Amino acid sequence: MGLKSFVEVPDDSHFPLENLPYGIFRPKAPVGGDPSQAVAAPRPGVAIGDSVLDLSAISSAGLFDGPLLSNSQCFNQPSLNKFLAMGRPAWKEARATIQKLLSLIKQNEVEMVLPVVIGDYTDFFSSMYHAKNCGTIFRGPENPIPTNWFHLPIAYHGRASSVVVSGTDVIRPSGQGHPVSSSSPYFGPSKKLDFELEMAVIVGPGNELGRPINVNEAYEHIFGLVLMNDWSARDIQAWEYVPLGPFLGKSFSTTISPWIVTLEALEPFACDAPKQEPHPLSYLAEKKHMNYDIPLEVWIKPAEHEKAAIVTKSNFKHLYWTITQQLAHHTINGCNLKPGDLLGTGTISGPEKESLGCLLELTWNGQNELSLNGSPQKFLEDGDEVIFTGYCKVCY
Amino acid sequence: MGLKSFVEVPDDSHFPLENLPYGIFRPKAPVGGDPSQAVAAPRPGVAIGDSVLDLSAISSAGLFDGPLLSNSQCFNQPSLNKFLAMGRPAWKEARATIQKLLSLIKQNEVEMVLPVVIGDYTDFFSSMYHAKNCGTIFRGPENPIPTNWFHLPIAYHGRASSVVVSGTDVIRPSGQGHPVSSSSPYFGPSKKLDFELEMAVIVGPGNELGRPINVNEAYEHIFGLVLMNDWSARDIQAWEYVPLGPFLGKSFSTTISPWIVTLEALEPFACDAPKQEPHPLSYLAEKKHMNYDIPLEVWIKPAEHEKAAIVTKSNFKHLYWTITQQLAHHTINGCNLKPGDLLGTGTISGPEKESLGCLLELTWNGQNELSLNGSPQKFLEDGDEVIFTGYCKVCY
Ligand SMILES: [Ca+2]
Ligand SMILES: [Ca+2]
Ligand SMILES: [Mg+2]
Ligand SMILES: [Mg+2]
Ligand code: NI
Repeated sequence: MGLKSFVEVPDDSHFPLENLPYGIFRPKAPVGGDPSQAVAAPRPGVAIGDSVLDLSAISSAGLFDGPLLSNSQCFNQPSLNKFLAMGRPAWKEARATIQKLLSLIKQNEVEMVLPVVIGDYTDFFSSMYHAKNCGTIFRGPENPIPTNWFHLPIAYHGRASSVVVSGTDVIRPSGQGHPVSSSSPYFGPSKKLDFELEMAVIVGPGNELGRPINVNEAYEHIFGLVLMNDWSARDIQAWEYVPLGPFLGKSFSTTISPWIVTLEALEPFACDAPKQEPHPLSYLAEKKHMNYDIPLEVWIKPAEHEKAAIVTKSNFKHLYWTITQQLAHHTINGCNLKPGDLLGTGTISGPEKESLGCLLELTWNGQNELSLNGSPQKFLEDGDEVIFTGYCKVCY
Repeated sequence: MGLKSFVEVPDDSHFPLENLPYGIFRPKAPVGGDPSQAVAAPRPGVAIGDSVLDLSAISSAGLFDGPLLSNSQCFNQPSLNKFLAMGRPAWKEARATIQKLLSLIKQNEVEMVLPVVIGDYTDFFSSMYHAKNCGTIFRGPENPIPTNWFHLPIAYHGRASSVVVSGTDVIRPSGQGHPVSSSSPYFGPSKKLDFELEMAVIVGPGNELGRPINVNEAYEHIFGLVLMNDWSARDIQAWEYVPLGPFLGKSFSTTISPWIVTLEALEPFACDAPKQEPHPLSYLAEKKHMNYDIPLEVWIKPAEHEKAAIVTKSNFKHLYWTITQQLAHHTINGCNLKPGDLLGTGTISGPEKESLGCLLELTWNGQNELSLNGSPQKFLEDGDEVIFTGYCKVCY
């Protein structure tokens, strides 16, 4: 049985009262309104059903009356960073207050913007199935998974400036590709544009330079999760990535969902994470080794089609390295994390053919075709819309 | 013959009136002063001899009377980002005004802080000598330079949060290393702590997502250069970097000089860049293919020594890929650069044994020893001070 509220939330909504994800929105300008009129300021909100709770209004009205939030300006801000810096006690107080409130605006009357100022963005590589498939495709079937992979959650620094909110158009990138090993590289628009199904952590308080976060305290530094599409140009990536890793093949756009789902909301869906063999070194050995059971889907809607076609059904629980291990590893050298930093999980592929998290794997680097409602397709085509969903539901 | 000024600048100063590098400083608290007193606000300054010109004071006094700067608040800021966004016409106007002025504070009475808010930090790999030596050490003497290297300026995204200003202590990072191929990784403080001699571009106006910068216009987006030490833990790096590139082996600290030397000041030291064969693709083929003749030195002062010992004499002009090619390549996929972004050149090694830009090369991964005033040393030891200098001088 769900929580009860006089706010009506349809049964199949992704945003029931149990969820309460955070985002930044601004009211849309009225249609036919004065275009010279100032655009409304972006502000924090929480999604409920098809509405948004305006936290700046709630805060100005003095309705956040708990000890941590009553005198805080954290919701009169154009990003969530101040609120993130306050940590879990403030997040819990906000959640408890919000669950009692109801100052709602319809979601279709607002425009969502990027919820945080992202100082740094890191992308991990934590699905064993994805690592194995990519290794086989890029480096061959002998030892496809690098030796280090089972000892540490491998990651690379991504580009923070090009992270955009869901709904932002993605321009097909141009770059260098290399057709066969002896010929010269060519230049032009990418022919192998791909998505990567990921989720990403939004960092809370973080740490000072030189002070690592213990793996058993990492949870306190994770505010919540977003869906993330790490758009990838496979031809650019394959040519550029040795020896320094992904660069222009990724940095043209990375899309995140506008709503941050909190760990409090995900708590009922916690599940055991995969057993790790070899055992991780002690700084990665955590007392609670948990994932979340979050079914994930990817749909593609080609420009000329009426309907989107499903291409993947995966699940967050397939990750080998947990988000708490990722965060602890990231800081073990003293690297400082800041409120609003973004930590991608890496592509979330599962063990089945139907649960692969990118077209590189689904088409085996373009060797096979997918059928989208009957139309054959390999990589992304101009006008395609890529839709990610994640939705947890307890069955009563 | 240098410019004349009634400000006395010693002949051997790195900061003559021709230079005028930019930085952010705040007056030091008086010794024995009230510790509860508010710390003075950071503000922009320009170095002249052993003094600092306080640009916020000059600006408040209305002395920036040119068309672009007279009504601007760009110098009443704790970072240079606003000024950087204004572009080269504003930078030239500021330089012309400053060359007439003289509101000076002694440099030893101020504390320098990070001059820009760095949104993203990228590190290139543009010295052929460094690429060849690293490739030989990490991957063997056969084809040490990857095929792609001569076709594009390879780079990786670095960590922006851990960029610090010169003088900041660096804490030796801990992490995983791997002694021999069949044994398990170990964990502990890095045994192969290294410096990397680099310079770095500070980005000016930059570009919108999806709108690449033409290589022949890249100059207009480069405000100036800093010295940069890309501290590197070679044992952590060697174990983690395949296949996604450098991560924790670099992200524990990156040091930049507090003063940004402008391209205007470097103009007299422009020189031809190395001829490129194979010819670069047209988007990298620039009309003016120039480097700067900037002699660079690295000195190490061990904790218990009286004097520092020189370990390297290199030169910025050894870079194969120019900073304008680097910047154009960075945006060719549509990636957006922002004011204050930092683009490292990569380690600047020259052709001679004495011009190698890091200890990895100088000691051939610890196989050989250096002599520091008679003391043998391989990698960095606790308490070592690493000093970079760069100083251009016209001989009249
Ligand atoms: Ca990815
Ligand atoms: Ca470097
Ligand atoms: Mg991306
Ligand atoms: Mg570094
Ligand atoms: Ni990398």
